[in-house]
Formats: sequence, C-alpha cells, structure tokens
Amino acid sequence: MTVGTVHGVGLGPGDPDLMSLRAHRLLTGARHVAFFRKAGRDGQARKIINGLLRPDVVEFAMEYPVTTEIPLTDPRYNEILSGFYADCAAHLRGLAEGGEDVVVLSEGDPFFYGSFMHVYTRLRDHVPVQVVPAITGMSAAWTATGAPITWGDDILTVLMGTLNAQELTERMKTTDALVVMKIGRNIDKVRDALKAAGKYDDAWLVEYASMPGQTVQRLSEAEDRVTPYFSIIVVHGQGRRP
Amino acid sequence: MTVGTVHGVGLGPGDPDLMSLRAHRLLTGARHVAFFRKAGRDGQARKIINGLLRPDVVEFAMEYPVTTEIPLTDPRYNEILSGFYADCAAHLRGLAEGGEDVVVLSEGDPFFYGSFMHVYTRLRDHVPVQVVPAITGMSAAWTATGAPITWGDDILTVLMGTLNAQELTERMKTTDALVVMKIGRNIDKVRDALKAAGKYDDAWLVEYASMPGQTVQRLSEAEDRVTPYFSIIVVHGQGRRP
Ligand SMILES: C[S@@+](CC[C@H](N)C(=O)[O-])C[C@H]1O[C@@H](n2cnc3c(N)ncnc32)[C@H](O)[C@@H]1O
Ligand SMILES: C[S@@+](CC[C@H](N)C(=O)[O-])C[C@H]1O[C@@H](n2cnc3c(N)ncnc32)[C@H](O)[C@@H]1O
Repeated sequence: MTVGTVHGVGLGPGDPDLMSLRAHRLLTGARHVAFFRKAGRDGQARKIINGLLRPDVVEFAMEYPVTTEIPLTDPRYNEILSGFYADCAAHLRGLAEGGEDVVVLSEGDPFFYGSFMHVYTRLRDHVPVQVVPAITGMSAAWTATGAPITWGDDILTVLMGTLNAQELTERMKTTDALVVMKIGRNIDKVRDALKAAGKYDDAWLVEYASMPGQTVQRLSEAEDRVTPYFSIIVVHGQGRRP
Repeated sequence: MTVGTVHGVGLGPGDPDLMSLRAHRLLTGARHVAFFRKAGRDGQARKIINGLLRPDVVEFAMEYPVTTEIPLTDPRYNEILSGFYADCAAHLRGLAEGGEDVVVLSEGDPFFYGSFMHVYTRLRDHVPVQVVPAITGMSAAWTATGAPITWGDDILTVLMGTLNAQELTERMKTTDALVVMKIGRNIDKVRDALKAAGKYDDAWLVEYASMPGQTVQRLSEAEDRVTPYFSIIVVHGQGRRP
C-alpha cells in the first residue's frame, strides 16, 4: 500500500475565484478534507469552499479547544493547544498511513501565520506533506484599497496587533509600507500606536477582504468601530516612482 | 459604445498552476494582452502563459527603454521611464476607449513592487481598471524552503537589495522574519549585511521559485554564486508556537 499525502492547501483570501488552479483541483478531487474551526462555528476556510467538494467527501473538523478564553500568556494555553495540534496531526497521519490523501484547508497562504503550520511541523517527518501557497489576506486588502502597497525600495513591515504598544509604535514609525493583522481586541492599542507614529491619517481599514461584506475605509473614519477577526490595516508606501 | 476595462492581472510566482481561477479565465478569454519585457527578451510574465492565449489574441509588448544601463540615481533614468510608462498607458487607454478589454500581465501580485503600478496610476482616472491580486514570489519562495515564514507575533520585514548597506543591516538585525528581493548585483552587499546582522547562517536563497530550474539552498552554501533576477532570500521567523 502506498502512503497518502497530506496537502496543506491555501485557499486564498476568501473569494473562491482567487483560489489557485492547483488548490481548486485538489479540493474538487479530495476524498478527505480537514479544516480548523472554533467550536460551534462554520469555519471561514470551510465556508470558502462550500459547494466545491465531492458528494462522498469525508470531512474532519478540527475544533480549537480554546482561542481567546485563556490569555496567551497563561502556560495552560500552550499546553492545551499543543495537545490539540498533536491530536489533529495524529488523525491526519493515520489517514495518510492508511493510504489516503488528505486536503487540509488554510485561509490565505498556509506558511504565513497559518494554523496549518502547527500540524505541518508535527507531520513532516512521518508522512509526505505538500504545501500549496496562496494569495494572502493582505494582498486582497491592499488590492481592495485601490492603491499599490510598495514602490521602488519601500520597506514593508507586517505587524500583529498582539505586539505591545511600544513595539508597535516603534515599528510603525520606521517603516515605509505597513500591514497590521490580528487586530480584533487590539484595535485601540493599534490606533494609539499609529497616532504616536504619525501614520494614523494614512491608515486604511479593510474588513473581509475579497469576502462578502468587504469594507474599505480610512481608519480615522471608522472610529468606535468593532473590527471583526478578518480585518487588516494598511498604510501604503510612497517610494520612488518615475 | 461601452468603454473597455484594463485588467491588471497577477499571474503568481511562475508556475501556471498557481494562477488564480480569475486570472486564468481572464487570460484564456482575452482578445488583447499587454506585458512588459526587456528589449530582445521573452519576458517572464509572457512566458508563464505560453499556450493559454486565444489564437486570435493581439499582443502588445511594452519594452523597457532602459533597465540597468543607467544608474537609478541619474535623473535621465526617471525621465525616460516616465515617458515610457506614459506611452504604454496612452496605448492601453486608447484600446479601452475604443471599447476593448485589455489584460495587462503582472508577475506575482500587481500591487507588490509591480511594473503594472506605473501604468495603473496613469490610467485609473480615465478608464475602468480592475486589479487581480496573486500569489507573490515570496510566498512561493518560503513554501519552497519547506518551513513556515512567520509564527505567533513574528515581525516580517521585506527589503529590497537596492537599499544601502547600513539600512539593510539595521533592518535585518531588528526583524524576526525577513525577505530580501531585487538581489542581482546587490548580492555581496546583502551577504555582508546579513553577516553584520548575525543572520547569514539562517538565510536561504531561493532562485526561480515555482519556476523550471527552482533551487533552494542555504545562502552560506551558495558562495560566489551569481544570482539571477528571480532570486529571493528568506530568513524564517522562530516565534511563539504551541
Ligand atoms: C492567523 S492569520 C492568517 C493569515 C493567512 N494565512 C494569510 O495568508 O492571510 C489571521 C489574520 O489574517 C488576516 N486576514 C486574513 N485574510 C483576511 C481577509 N480576507 N480580510 C481581512 N483580513 C484577513 C486578519 O488580520 C486575521 O486576523
Ligand atoms: C519587481 S519585483 C516584482 C514582485 C512581484 N510583483 C511579486 O509579487 O512577487 C521583482 C523581484 O521579485 C522577486 N521574485 C518575484 N517572483 C519570483 C520568483 N518566482 N522566484 C524568485 N524571485 C521572485 C525577485 O526578487 C525579483 O527581483
């Protein structure tokens, strides 16, 4: 019997039309599809591919045991998540060792802050794993703003909203082009850091880039807005151009 | 008569299988396809889509008048390129005003250091322009290394090899994950900066990511190598992970 392959397939930013040909082919042919989701939720990755799967597909929903209930700094957080990823990896490995190929869904690009990375590192020494890169959420976000993100030798910095206020401010100050992801509850801290860095008025907030309900607005015109999980802040570079 | 649309279509990193469904559909249906290339060369973007175009397609090759012959700092460089982009934009605008849709090819993502941006800004106030985001060269590069680029709240910095040595070193020192593009003749400066930043031994060189002839090697094991235009250096983040 041949061992199966685990495919970590990036679906892109949300619009199914922005999926790669390879991702589309792997998905529509898949007998086994696995995906992460919050307990009781649909899971964004799974939603993107609604209607694309084979009728006889076997789905495996990997439900996060915790997400925001326990603070990131609590040691239990790591333990619980680590056990969870180990269980997921064991299941996927079992399928592959049983000769089945499995497609694991990933929002955006799998290797760019993706959950798939956590099962990837636990699988790659045991069964064949293939990764399909994809369009990132940030590419869809800057495209939605209608202006290029980087020119000439602009420096691009990508920051997570989970960084502390001082680090955020410092980095925002010294970059040309900026992307901030994982904003959620960190929105006030991110706003303050942008102000302190003198970039608040140039910041754009993109929610649900390329998804139904996409919005694009200046951050300064979105005061008091509660930003959803799928939100990205963009400040465009203004570098050299002929 | 309806005005046509100029589509700035990102083709992705090189492998045609990594093109989006939308890009593929626009390309295979296009009556007019425009692309940049160096005079006398095929042009990478055009090569990616060999065999996909309609038999009756009308192609418009936009040939750079200068690329590396005149230094970036020479004022003539800007003037010549600016005139060139204006001419290209005028031609594309003429097609659109004549009722034709045109697809303009872009390597990787059009808004991420892409040539398309220069015609985009000259067209967008005159005719409808639509941009299709795409998988970047850097996504294909880190995927090729077989290791995720960013974990947890890793900071990612994207640098151009054209920056000066001090700036490169400074930025390399203070980032978690790193991507360096536009390397070419700047390779020695980039190597020295990586050494000064203490990141040389962790740097990977990816040539022709997802293209025929792709290579992945530790930069330190590629001494004296002349790197082609399609080269990216990657240093992976090592951030928090359960
Ligand atoms: C865990 S990261 C995953 C990133 C993903 N792998 C990628 O390549 O874009 C999740 C964060 O990505 C951002 N994000 C991803 N896709 C997005 C989209 N379509 N619209 C807005 N934000 C998005 C949000 O900031 C979100 O908090
Ligand atoms: C003018 S920039 C264009 C970037 C492109 N728009 C993108 O999204 O990747 C050209 C630089 O991109 C990098 N590059 C783009 N695609 C690549 C690939 N497939 N392999 C290696 N390098 C690539 C190289 O560093 C090259 O010098």
